[in-house]
Formats: sequence, structure tokens, C-alpha cells
Amino acid sequence: MKKATIHEIARSLNIDSSTVSRALNDSPLVKKATKDLILKKAREMGYKRNLLASNLRRNKSNTIGVIVPRISRHFFSSTIAGIEEAAYKDGFNVIICQSLEQLNREQRIVENLLQNRVDGILISVSMETLKGSHLEQCAVTDTPLVFFDRHIKDLPYSGQVLIDDFHGGFVATEHLILKGCKKIAHFTGPKNLEIYKNRLAGYRSAMEEHDLENNGNLILPSSLMESDGFKLVAKLLDTVGDVDGIFCANDLVAIGAMKGLKALGKTIPDDIAIVGFSNEPISEIIEPSLTTIDQNGESIGRLACEMLLRQITRTDKMIRNKTVVLTPKLIERESSNRR
Amino acid sequence: MKKATIHEIARSLNIDSSTVSRALNDSPLVKKATKDLILKKAREMGYKRNLLASNLRRNKSNTIGVIVPRISRHFFSSTIAGIEEAAYKDGFNVIICQSLEQLNREQRIVENLLQNRVDGILISVSMETLKGSHLEQCAVTDTPLVFFDRHIKDLPYSGQVLIDDFHGGFVATEHLILKGCKKIAHFTGPKNLEIYKNRLAGYRSAMEEHDLENNGNLILPSSLMESDGFKLVAKLLDTVGDVDGIFCANDLVAIGAMKGLKALGKTIPDDIAIVGFSNEPISEIIEPSLTTIDQNGESIGRLACEMLLRQITRTDKMIRNKTVVLTPKLIERESSNRR
Repeated sequence: MKKATIHEIARSLNIDSSTVSRALNDSPLVKKATKDLILKKAREMGYKRNLLASNLRRNKSNTIGVIVPRISRHFFSSTIAGIEEAAYKDGFNVIICQSLEQLNREQRIVENLLQNRVDGILISVSMETLKGSHLEQCAVTDTPLVFFDRHIKDLPYSGQVLIDDFHGGFVATEHLILKGCKKIAHFTGPKNLEIYKNRLAGYRSAMEEHDLENNGNLILPSSLMESDGFKLVAKLLDTVGDVDGIFCANDLVAIGAMKGLKALGKTIPDDIAIVGFSNEPISEIIEPSLTTIDQNGESIGRLACEMLLRQITRTDKMIRNKTVVLTPKLIERESSNRR
Repeated sequence: MKKATIHEIARSLNIDSSTVSRALNDSPLVKKATKDLILKKAREMGYKRNLLASNLRRNKSNTIGVIVPRISRHFFSSTIAGIEEAAYKDGFNVIICQSLEQLNREQRIVENLLQNRVDGILISVSMETLKGSHLEQCAVTDTPLVFFDRHIKDLPYSGQVLIDDFHGGFVATEHLILKGCKKIAHFTGPKNLEIYKNRLAGYRSAMEEHDLENNGNLILPSSLMESDGFKLVAKLLDTVGDVDGIFCANDLVAIGAMKGLKALGKTIPDDIAIVGFSNEPISEIIEPSLTTIDQNGESIGRLACEMLLRQITRTDKMIRNKTVVLTPKLIERESSNRR
């Protein structure tokens, strides 16, 4: 079955093709009654406006592309919820792509989105993304680009909505100190990503402010998986006997650490207190429930999308390098509630 | 900054435009050394092949569209993982869209994907999708359509990958019966969706086979939210005093029911045993851990995507209405482990 053309619709209604074309483009030159008649017939005949051809003319798709490492992480699905809300209100469609933490996938996705002329891109970069040469194409093609959460330094961008990760790391660590912990370890994330560098810096700063040791033995790198946390506690207790607190770069690592500690016969929080980061739903359900840092993903997504839409819809020169920083908040639960 | 054209690249290299064009289309008529030179220069000059124009010519985008109710549900993010794996292997890009359980969003997404000429669509329909008139456009435009999990009856489609939900409902209910439960309730999902009708039918069949009562008082409708489960247990215990087992249409409702029962002072599983459906990660973490039905989302996604890709890449007549049904499996945990 072939798609109907404007000419076939015109012929079947015995109307001029140009009138059909005007009606389908919602021109004010066509009377409402005629327009309704044409639209009805077009629907019946399976007419589909060639958006691809018309995008090519006006260079717009009314679609924004969102790139995240993994949709299965609660933080990213919450930011996407905020993005969808803001985009829907302004009549934009949202298409979501996952880099699965791989740079080569991220490059291919950016290429694909630009070639399909999305009106703008929202991105939180992959763990492997050290530089943004693949993102420079956004500036070249005048496509607004807004980072949220995981960003890259020294790159032209339209805007970024970030979390104050230093503050989050500081607050998480100081909370453990105020609960009486003296030897606190930190399981970090990939050190090429700004956000994990900043969480680590926040940890260090809190430890120094309270004159507590924070040498290399206490700082162990993870790749953000639950299995890392499980393995790292065994390694940590082998080298440092008297650890009484661990601040983990995300909740999955914290949950792995909790499982590992239980397997080693340790009590949480009395032997070792734990704080995570990101407030995954699971952190409220696990027993003991996990103290963590909430980032309010939905607000981040909404703000980032609104920033992008302002860039897309404005006709004057793009504002560059606008940054909004949100302050994350400590959620106290049982895993740090020491007597 | 304007994008470089083929002519500008040709001029800067002092080569014929047609040679540049052939090189960029990877023609065997151009020597490897020349090709490399041209590709390098094209990259330097920010050349971007106009995929939109070339899609228009060949009517292909090398992209498949995936529509799910919510990416935040573990089952859907697992099916998407399987889809990405199969698509990536064959060089296809995946774009993901959420209907957020709303028919009007789903309609707009289908429209947008078809207008952007995706090569095929994979869909699990929204809770509000009673009929598929918006999906008929796929057949009209010769765009292969494959359903997975939530499907619609009586619609032309290329294929569907389903779960044997009747079997799942039967096995879940019979498990409670074998654990000694005599009065088993069922919290259902939206009754317009085939999958929930089938889970309910499985429940009824198991109860009848064991000569157990399964009247209307024992069957309460939910809209699949945790809050539904919480409220429904209070309502259930008000009308039916001696319930000793509940089979819930999904894990979120089951978790809500568990929280509700704890709040009412009931012990799980000894007072009331619980079985869920879908094996969300949270079901293993909650205490007591939740007995549930695993659907193997990753296999469903992979099979559905492979079915779609066979339709996209074959040139002969499309095979219609192919159905694959997978058998879900009971995961026994503490919430049903009665003495």
C-alpha cells in the first residue's frame, strides 16, 4: 500500500492541489469547512506529511535528544521525568538514548541525533568521556547543548545544570564524623568525571577540617557497581583494621558494601556506619535503611530542559556557558544512626 | 560557522567533487590513500553528511524506535537492554520514548517516529491504549511493528513477543495453595490490558482446580502503584477477615501490600503470604524478601528486536502476526515461606 500524495487527495476531492497543500499546512487562506474536509480525506487516505522533507527545509524537528549513561539508574530516570514534563508543556518531543557508559556509543548517538536535526541535546556524559571532541559538532551545527550532572570542562556549551558535589561529599562525611566515626573511608567513582572528583574533595575537606586522617589507604576507587562495594570492604578491612565509617560515591556501591560487611559478620551502623549518594528507591527499603544524599533529579531535568528550550526558541545570539548549581541534601536513615 | 560542502572540500584538496562524493560514500572506485586524505580533510572542515537528505532518498534512518510506558520500571529497562544489544550488533541506533501510560502521548510519539522515518517500531502499550488505530499507520507506511509484553488484539502487526501470563498467574497462585493458603486474594492490574486479564485467569484457574473460593470479594483492581497495594489490604481485611494469601499483579503493588500489612500488625508470611510479579530488584532487598515471577525482560527485548530487524532487512513480503511466547518462572523467597 502506497502513501497518498497531495495530488491524489486533490483529485479525489476535485479541489486544486495548492489548496490541499495550504490546508495541510494550516494556512489561514483556506476556509475552516474546506480545511476540515481535506484533513478528513487525508486521514482516510493514509496521508502522512513528509516531515523529513519539511524538516530539511526549515531545519527543525521539534524534537530534543537526551543522552544518559543508563536509564535504569533512578537518578537518570528522575531527570528524564523532569525533562519530559518541561518539553511536553512546550510541545516538544523527547527521544532518549543510552551511552551505556561507552564513549564510542556516545559518539555514534551524538552523530545520529545531529544528522537527524534534533533541535537541541541534553547530555550527562559516559564514564569513558574524557574529552568532548564529539560534542564540538553541536557548536559547529548551531545545535544548543546543555549538560546536566556529569559534564566536561573546557568545552563550548549552551548551559549546564549541576549538583554541588563538593558540598554533598562534605556533608556526607561530616555527618559520619558527627555520629562519632573517627576512621572514615571513601569508595570513589571514576576519577576522570568531575562529579566524583568533587565528592572526593568534599570528603577530604571535611576530614581535614576535623583533623582526621585521610590517606591513600582509606580512598579506594570503584566503577560504581554493587559488586565493587562488596569486594572493596574485604580489601579495606585487610589493610585498615579499625575503620568505623564509609562514605560511598553512589548508593549501589554502598549497598554492595553493606552486603559485604554483613557477610563478614560486621554490624551496621555500630561496627561500621555507611553513607551513600543519590537516594535510589532501594536505599529506603534495604535493612538497615541507607543514609544518603538526595540530588532531586526531577528539578535538575526540568531546569536543564527549560534552559535548552530557551536556547532553541530564542532567535538572537546564543548565551554561552550559563551554569546553575543545585545544593543536594542529606537524608538521614538507619545505616549511620550510631548510639 | 557554516558546515563545509563537498565542493569546498574538493576545492581545498584540488580534487574533483565527484571523487570527494564517492569517497564519502565509501565507493570502491576511489583508492584507499585518496579516501583517507578526503575523510581527514572532511573531518577537519566539519563536514557532516546530510543524512536527512539521504534518508529522504533511500527512505531509511538506520534507527529503530522503542515505546514503553515507563523507563523507570525494571522490567522495561531490562527489555531495553536486550533491544540495545541486538540493535547495536546490526549497526542500528535505538531511540527510546515513554508514553507515561497516556494514550495521547503514545499517539504523538508514534506520529513523530513515523514522520522521522524510523525503520521499525517496538512497543509495549500504555494502560489507556484500548484500541490501536494510531498504530495502523505503521501498516499504511510499511513500517514493521513488533509488540512486546503489553500488546493489542486484532491489529495488523509484524510480530509479538509475549509472556505466558496465564501460566505466571497459575503458578503464583498454586504456589500459595501448596504453601497451605486457603483464602487467596488477587490484586489485579488494569483490566483492558491482555496481560493482566491473563494473570487473573491464571489465578482463577488455579483456585478452581483446587476447589477454592474465588469470588468478587477476593479480586480487587489496582492501577499498579505501590500506594494501591497499601490501601487495598485495609479494604480487603475489612470485607474478608480470614485471607491468608495475596497474589499481586506486580511487585510494586505487592510491596505496598507488605507495607500495609506491617502497618496493620500482620506477620508476613505466617498471617498472610504474598507473591508478586516481575522480579524488580527491590523484591530481593525488601524484608521479608518477595516471592515473585521472573519474566526475563532481557530475552524478551532481544527476541523482539531480532524479529523486527529481520522484518526491516528482508526485502520480500513481510511475514504477519508471528507470535513468540516465553514461559515465566517462579522465584521462591521469604514472603511465601510459611511453616
